[in-house]
Amino acid sequence: MSDAGVVVVQGGRVVNAEYSEQADVLIEGGVVRAVGPALPVPAGARLVSAHGRLVLPGGVDPHTHMELPFMGTRAVDDFYQGTRAALAGGTTMIVDFVLGARGISLLDAFRTWRGWADPNVCCDYSLHVGVTWWSEQVSEEMGVLVRSEGVNSFKAFMAYKEAFMLRDPELFSVFRRCKELGAIAQVHAENGDLIAEGEKEMLERGITGPEGHELCRPEVVEAEATNRAITIAGRARCPLYVVHVMSKAAAGVIARARRAGQVVFGEPIAAGLGTDGTHYWHRDWRHAAAYVMGPPLRPDPTTPGYLMDLLANDDLSTTGTDNCTFNACQKAMGKDDFTKIPNGVNGVEDRMSVIWERGVHSGKMDENRFVAVTSTNAAKIFNLHPRKGRIAPGCDADLVVWNPNATRTISARTHHQAVDFNIFEGMECHGVADVTISRGRVVWEGGLLAPDLRGTGRYVPRAAFPDYAYQRIRAQDQANQPRAVEREPYQGPVLAPDA
Amino acid sequence: MSDAGVVVVQGGRVVNAEYSEQADVLIEGGVVRAVGPALPVPAGARLVSAHGRLVLPGGVDPHTHMELPFMGTRAVDDFYQGTRAALAGGTTMIVDFVLGARGISLLDAFRTWRGWADPNVCCDYSLHVGVTWWSEQVSEEMGVLVRSEGVNSFKAFMAYKEAFMLRDPELFSVFRRCKELGAIAQVHAENGDLIAEGEKEMLERGITGPEGHELCRPEVVEAEATNRAITIAGRARCPLYVVHVMSKAAAGVIARARRAGQVVFGEPIAAGLGTDGTHYWHRDWRHAAAYVMGPPLRPDPTTPGYLMDLLANDDLSTTGTDNCTFNACQKAMGKDDFTKIPNGVNGVEDRMSVIWERGVHSGKMDENRFVAVTSTNAAKIFNLHPRKGRIAPGCDADLVVWNPNATRTISARTHHQAVDFNIFEGMECHGVADVTISRGRVVWEGGLLAPDLRGTGRYVPRAAFPDYAYQRIRAQDQANQPRAVEREPYQGPVLAPDA
Amino acid sequence: MSDAGVVVVQGGRVVNAEYSEQADVLIEGGVVRAVGPALPVPAGARLVSAHGRLVLPGGVDPHTHMELPFMGTRAVDDFYQGTRAALAGGTTMIVDFVLGARGISLLDAFRTWRGWADPNVCCDYSLHVGVTWWSEQVSEEMGVLVRSEGVNSFKAFMAYKEAFMLRDPELFSVFRRCKELGAIAQVHAENGDLIAEGEKEMLERGITGPEGHELCRPEVVEAEATNRAITIAGRARCPLYVVHVMSKAAAGVIARARRAGQVVFGEPIAAGLGTDGTHYWHRDWRHAAAYVMGPPLRPDPTTPGYLMDLLANDDLSTTGTDNCTFNACQKAMGKDDFTKIPNGVNGVEDRMSVIWERGVHSGKMDENRFVAVTSTNAAKIFNLHPRKGRIAPGCDADLVVWNPNATRTISARTHHQAVDFNIFEGMECHGVADVTISRGRVVWEGGLLAPDLRGTGRYVPRAAFPDYAYQRIRAQDQANQPRAVEREPYQGPVLAPDA
Amino acid sequence: MSDAGVVVVQGGRVVNAEYSEQADVLIEGGVVRAVGPALPVPAGARLVSAHGRLVLPGGVDPHTHMELPFMGTRAVDDFYQGTRAALAGGTTMIVDFVLGARGISLLDAFRTWRGWADPNVCCDYSLHVGVTWWSEQVSEEMGVLVRSEGVNSFKAFMAYKEAFMLRDPELFSVFRRCKELGAIAQVHAENGDLIAEGEKEMLERGITGPEGHELCRPEVVEAEATNRAITIAGRARCPLYVVHVMSKAAAGVIARARRAGQVVFGEPIAAGLGTDGTHYWHRDWRHAAAYVMGPPLRPDPTTPGYLMDLLANDDLSTTGTDNCTFNACQKAMGKDDFTKIPNGVNGVEDRMSVIWERGVHSGKMDENRFVAVTSTNAAKIFNLHPRKGRIAPGCDADLVVWNPNATRTISARTHHQAVDFNIFEGMECHGVADVTISRGRVVWEGGLLAPDLRGTGRYVPRAAFPDYAYQRIRAQDQANQPRAVEREPYQGPVLAPDA
Repeated sequence: MSDAGVVVVQGGRVVNAEYSEQADVLIEGGVVRAVGPALPVPAGARLVSAHGRLVLPGGVDPHTHMELPFMGTRAVDDFYQGTRAALAGGTTMIVDFVLGARGISLLDAFRTWRGWADPNVCCDYSLHVGVTWWSEQVSEEMGVLVRSEGVNSFKAFMAYKEAFMLRDPELFSVFRRCKELGAIAQVHAENGDLIAEGEKEMLERGITGPEGHELCRPEVVEAEATNRAITIAGRARCPLYVVHVMSKAAAGVIARARRAGQVVFGEPIAAGLGTDGTHYWHRDWRHAAAYVMGPPLRPDPTTPGYLMDLLANDDLSTTGTDNCTFNACQKAMGKDDFTKIPNGVNGVEDRMSVIWERGVHSGKMDENRFVAVTSTNAAKIFNLHPRKGRIAPGCDADLVVWNPNATRTISARTHHQAVDFNIFEGMECHGVADVTISRGRVVWEGGLLAPDLRGTGRYVPRAAFPDYAYQRIRAQDQANQPRAVEREPYQGPVLAPDA
Repeated sequence: MSDAGVVVVQGGRVVNAEYSEQADVLIEGGVVRAVGPALPVPAGARLVSAHGRLVLPGGVDPHTHMELPFMGTRAVDDFYQGTRAALAGGTTMIVDFVLGARGISLLDAFRTWRGWADPNVCCDYSLHVGVTWWSEQVSEEMGVLVRSEGVNSFKAFMAYKEAFMLRDPELFSVFRRCKELGAIAQVHAENGDLIAEGEKEMLERGITGPEGHELCRPEVVEAEATNRAITIAGRARCPLYVVHVMSKAAAGVIARARRAGQVVFGEPIAAGLGTDGTHYWHRDWRHAAAYVMGPPLRPDPTTPGYLMDLLANDDLSTTGTDNCTFNACQKAMGKDDFTKIPNGVNGVEDRMSVIWERGVHSGKMDENRFVAVTSTNAAKIFNLHPRKGRIAPGCDADLVVWNPNATRTISARTHHQAVDFNIFEGMECHGVADVTISRGRVVWEGGLLAPDLRGTGRYVPRAAFPDYAYQRIRAQDQANQPRAVEREPYQGPVLAPDA
Repeated sequence: MSDAGVVVVQGGRVVNAEYSEQADVLIEGGVVRAVGPALPVPAGARLVSAHGRLVLPGGVDPHTHMELPFMGTRAVDDFYQGTRAALAGGTTMIVDFVLGARGISLLDAFRTWRGWADPNVCCDYSLHVGVTWWSEQVSEEMGVLVRSEGVNSFKAFMAYKEAFMLRDPELFSVFRRCKELGAIAQVHAENGDLIAEGEKEMLERGITGPEGHELCRPEVVEAEATNRAITIAGRARCPLYVVHVMSKAAAGVIARARRAGQVVFGEPIAAGLGTDGTHYWHRDWRHAAAYVMGPPLRPDPTTPGYLMDLLANDDLSTTGTDNCTFNACQKAMGKDDFTKIPNGVNGVEDRMSVIWERGVHSGKMDENRFVAVTSTNAAKIFNLHPRKGRIAPGCDADLVVWNPNATRTISARTHHQAVDFNIFEGMECHGVADVTISRGRVVWEGGLLAPDLRGTGRYVPRAAFPDYAYQRIRAQDQANQPRAVEREPYQGPVLAPDA
Repeated sequence: MSDAGVVVVQGGRVVNAEYSEQADVLIEGGVVRAVGPALPVPAGARLVSAHGRLVLPGGVDPHTHMELPFMGTRAVDDFYQGTRAALAGGTTMIVDFVLGARGISLLDAFRTWRGWADPNVCCDYSLHVGVTWWSEQVSEEMGVLVRSEGVNSFKAFMAYKEAFMLRDPELFSVFRRCKELGAIAQVHAENGDLIAEGEKEMLERGITGPEGHELCRPEVVEAEATNRAITIAGRARCPLYVVHVMSKAAAGVIARARRAGQVVFGEPIAAGLGTDGTHYWHRDWRHAAAYVMGPPLRPDPTTPGYLMDLLANDDLSTTGTDNCTFNACQKAMGKDDFTKIPNGVNGVEDRMSVIWERGVHSGKMDENRFVAVTSTNAAKIFNLHPRKGRIAPGCDADLVVWNPNATRTISARTHHQAVDFNIFEGMECHGVADVTISRGRVVWEGGLLAPDLRGTGRYVPRAAFPDYAYQRIRAQDQANQPRAVEREPYQGPVLAPDA
């Protein structure tokens, strides 16, 4: 269907986060070589027409959980099927999470995930590492991961009390260590103690269905933890990235912290931007359970629009998916007890279309901001830029020919993911990926994926101290140093202690 | 100087929280018998002129720490001197805090405090009880205190990590127990973990003076804990009272929670309304140290005015003092290390004048709101109303003849407190207590206190389930009950766990 | 059915804005003579049982338009039927608006309204006066109305461009004049210019139905004018009362201004607290048209709850109705053009029940706040307090025996208003007026109104400079006086103008 | 000193709004030809070293008033001296304002300004056109200016009641016309009526000094007009650009509108970001008067930092200066009456350094955001991008070699402006323009300006419908079209009007 030889994308409007221009794109060896009007076409080059289309950097999904072992089962979209589906939707890179159990060496866990991903991924990928416990060893392994394995982001959990949750002093230690290493601290922000109490209460009240999932963790539970994480990170003077911002309240907390000068980034996800938590009250259990994820979608139907407004205005920075999919038979492990429903929804394939529809087609953001929030900003925060998230000479040739006028209707019947349900079922989206190019290869075209994609993606290491976060941190550390007041020593009487 | 016989206060403007009227007040047996224009004067009645004056309910200070053993020493204003000073300033009731160490029986601690106070208090008083640890025994003793000892409020600490601090799950348990008992949960809201880290950092940086006290616990540390406490109380559906709201950020958190329907009350204190934290940067160590309290006063000089605006608009509800005084020689225990400076400032004597000056004289609130925030609201929240905080037949005859036009200049040289420093030194206040009447006795007049006041005050028990907080809680519990969705059982396949 | 002789209301819980108590109420000569437990019953006294009930001050509706000539027709609820209906719902006083056309003497208009009302009113009433144009004569007549006719409130319109609307400099003049006279400035806050443009646009687009009414005046149009009015009043240092606050945005503007210290009051109305603007999209034209009023109800269904939250928290102060009713045949004058639908809805009968249901039964406010917002605050602002809005010796015997547990379902089939539609149709309300007493007479009992009510109400004059507004204004004027900087004269060269 | 031949800027870090890279810049014919590492140097090329330096797009100051005839005199910095000074500070383009008197043809005024500027400007420039009155002719001339003269922005005044001020219906008309033409509406947002009243009041109170200037137009006067302008523009669905945002309140209004989806841009200016209004209270009249501008600087000293926070977070978009300078002898025309002090301050030379110091050096924004707010965003909004505000092949060779580590102290003694006072006197700024290149010529280097600059700049025409504003407007117009409800005709009775 294609090879990684010379490709020329012709006649499109090349859209970067800063600027759009009518230009061709010349690709060679998996890298963009030239961008400009009417480029000469080398002999043997493959031509891709983009006339009347936009040419965008391929999407970067900074938040996926392919084949994650979780809650007694394993996510059905694995690194192969998940990344294939990503390509079909215009996403050319994912960043997944290494999540080892408590007590497990972070390095061992990292190697396990590499072992799952490397032979299977169809697009480039990288790995955040979860810090699910704290010890001297963990601290040291964080250092090794940064220095030797290309990891520059670590995620801490404030929820999942019996599994991954850290207490505040541990959080502080993780954040301080991140700061030292030049990493980005990430946080799942929900108050795990309150969720545990809420689950108990709901089950006692006889509420066992999916609505209980939301009722025991309403948005204040998310907003509280978000605020706490930001406060702790602020005191540790560490950049913070809040994954899956799901509520108006939590988003508002982030917006205020940014106005106050803190280096903090918020990531809403496709699910939260495209649908809402009223589904938990659906009369069909299977339907309702399919939306169970943590933090939950919110029953307030104005949430998606509000999050999109904040995303459009740079209160929120990126868009992920938290793609972590389970089939009905897996969800059904919790058919009599919502606390046993595996948490997770789809998104990796549909993210680009959902955000285009709700963000750009609606007039909330322009095409450049779309690029910023679907690829460039994530690339900058995690130090993948300009290699990813940008179309310019020297950048990786990950790009999408985007048709802003075409529409498609999302459905589990037609999607490329492994999972048997789609939370966006029936949504009509303007904005369709006509062609996806990954590392210079045309991998999606005419509604078909290239056949030989397994293992063609590569692990992308990331350097520490990304400028996008650390340039300001350094200046703030310099500008805001606390200073002692110079005083004459106190000369008066002093009480002896316990006198 | 006076006796608790018949007294008629003549010719004043009687100011209650709801309404002012020109009226005389007839007092007999320590109780108000009549309020009305031109009351007949019983034979032998003592006349107090209030012509051209206001007649206010005596102040209720809901937050004092007389003779508190703390940080290796003991507060110098004891129940005798502290309550004498209160009367001189127009305050006729205090609510102090029983604060036993971890592991100490709450009942034992309660009896200790009663033993200190009963023989010495010069005005009526009551006692909140600190819950400084958590166990089954503590839970049971809370029940005994409510049922048998007239306690309806319990305070939990989120700071003082090595002493009183509770963790979140303990907080939740305390709040749930309060709810069960019909008590008001109180909270000292600062993030103790972050303070501990901050102290360490400041000392490492060589910052040992009083400015370090604020630098290691800036207002986000207070606001975070305030938000967390409110969230936890909200999930426990328990009324919450936040003591000593010191910062704009914390006050804003409370205001938002109230708008969202939660039953939460905020108490700024005289110190926070009348002065600010720029004093920590004073070049004289003794001066700077005198302002050390927790949470600290804020260096942002717009804080006092902002807190007063919120107090005027019912975002904040009451005014306390956190009166807990230490002389220079005691403060000096921390002369080389701010973490050893005993925390605490004065206020019990000057609270009424400071709030009049900054609140009423400035035009931020009217005389009725002044009464509400200096006595009535505290009386309502802690179920002392209408006995306290109100001038009407049947109410305790605790009142003040207030001269809104007179001024006085606050000074340690002239105050009636034991402590050797006054944080309001030099402040000129309009609004002066001409006469104070406690339980029907004229105890302060012509600038003189009655000579025989020791032990004349009484312990005032308080009933559980104060309407002011619990009427709404009950309605909310009824109106907002979570309900299960009725569904057909899920009939599809179910994965076996770990399949 | 009753007479204005001696009445004793026995066994109820007397609820004032500040305080509730179990007490009887003794009434004589239309005035409350005593309030207390187990009052002796004078011979011949009529007994009213209030056992298990609340006894509330009768409602004060500060915003009605009985029999208003408007938009080519006249409101169908006249002073007789409107005030009868009020009594059936527990409201015992209304304040209506004198609204003369441009160029008409305010005094003449005032006398016209008195002529309509005096022979017909069934309860006490008073009159605000609209200032629909500006001139020296208007200014002088405002003075006469204040000094001689008991008027202390004047309403200005920022909408109705072709009828009542004033321009900003005129508004400023009216507000300054109000300040001088000690009156309360009132404002209908909508941007009349934008409405005119919006109407034109909607009709051009072919939108002729009731939805066009809202589409041409969305909430920003209200919020803008509210903000402008507050700013102008602030510069004139005049207390401001914003009638019919209909939107979240406008309410937020008021809340912010109050926090900033300005003396401004917001009045949501029963319609805005009990229903919403989705009705404008109803498929039945008659139904949709019945909700047309200005400012419109808002399509955002979270509006009523939000307004109630702000009302509960003293961001908003009172509740009116803007009762101004038109039958279907009158509304139908605009059947082909929404701009011709007479604006107005019902509310005077149902206000108390609607607010109880949505405010108290829901747990947003307690019974005392209910009294404050349904009678006391209006009475204070317009200087009717303590005569109205309070149950205490000396107050007018206007009161209601309120059953908080009973429910009734609102319907045009059973209501007592003249109009043929009820915007609350089908709403089930807890909180029912069992008995209404007006000026000491039982006028509503057992579901029946007394037969001989026409003309039994009286005009209640109101004195200028109500303390509730002007005490703070005076203090602010004193405290915030601008002062000149003392400087040496400038001695340098000066350019000749136009040099 | 230089010529517009071939120049290579070597070894610097090229900073664009989106991205920084280590690269050389090759310039030829006034245009950037190449950007990349280690570019080959053409023979005869002039080398400019940027080692250890940043290479930034030259500043674009979108708000100046060179030689403006105003208030009976004329600004002393003319197009020659003003643009020379701009170059010395690193600004390579200005956009000035054509401001004809009422009744004057816009086209005539435009030509007058071209006549003043063209022979004198030392850098490129463009012209906004003020719409100071409204008529059919004005509307037509706006069309001519857009179609034939390269104007795409029109400014309306809500202040200067006796000179430029438009009433709301006129504003609406101007905004609608802008929308039709694809122009950006600009607004000076202050309530002119309230200013007029305030001036009168201050003079009556005997306040004649510069402090009166602020006292009669406090920040609510600005915030009100800002809110009104935004509301009107929103109803006209026209993009709006608010010039000189001077207060926290006004900035907050803009931030909220942007969150609500409106296309509105806010421009703080160097004066407002670098100093504050406490100077109006300075005891030296000359000093105080030097700061007089409209809207005034704010006495709240937290204003500059707050505006910078909002600028850093994209609530505000660009930075101008409103450079409009008058010498002491001109200011002195108002020595006895502040209303006669010509309004205006300096800024065109110091803007870049002031924003670097307060924005970047402080850690509030990074170097890329600095470029966005000093050139790129203005270029995008006014359709000058990518020609201006960007360093890339094909862009104009307007750039600055910026030394972020050097400092300079601002002073009137050393600045290049004509005016005899500098409002930033004594401010030490990190961030200094080492070399400025305008249209490919080195015009500032080693602290010296090229000698032959007069008239070397050119008028830059701007096309209508800038994508940065209009892409979203178009989508919104499409997405938010109001629609009529389909209904059966009303069949009931209809009242005859006035029946």
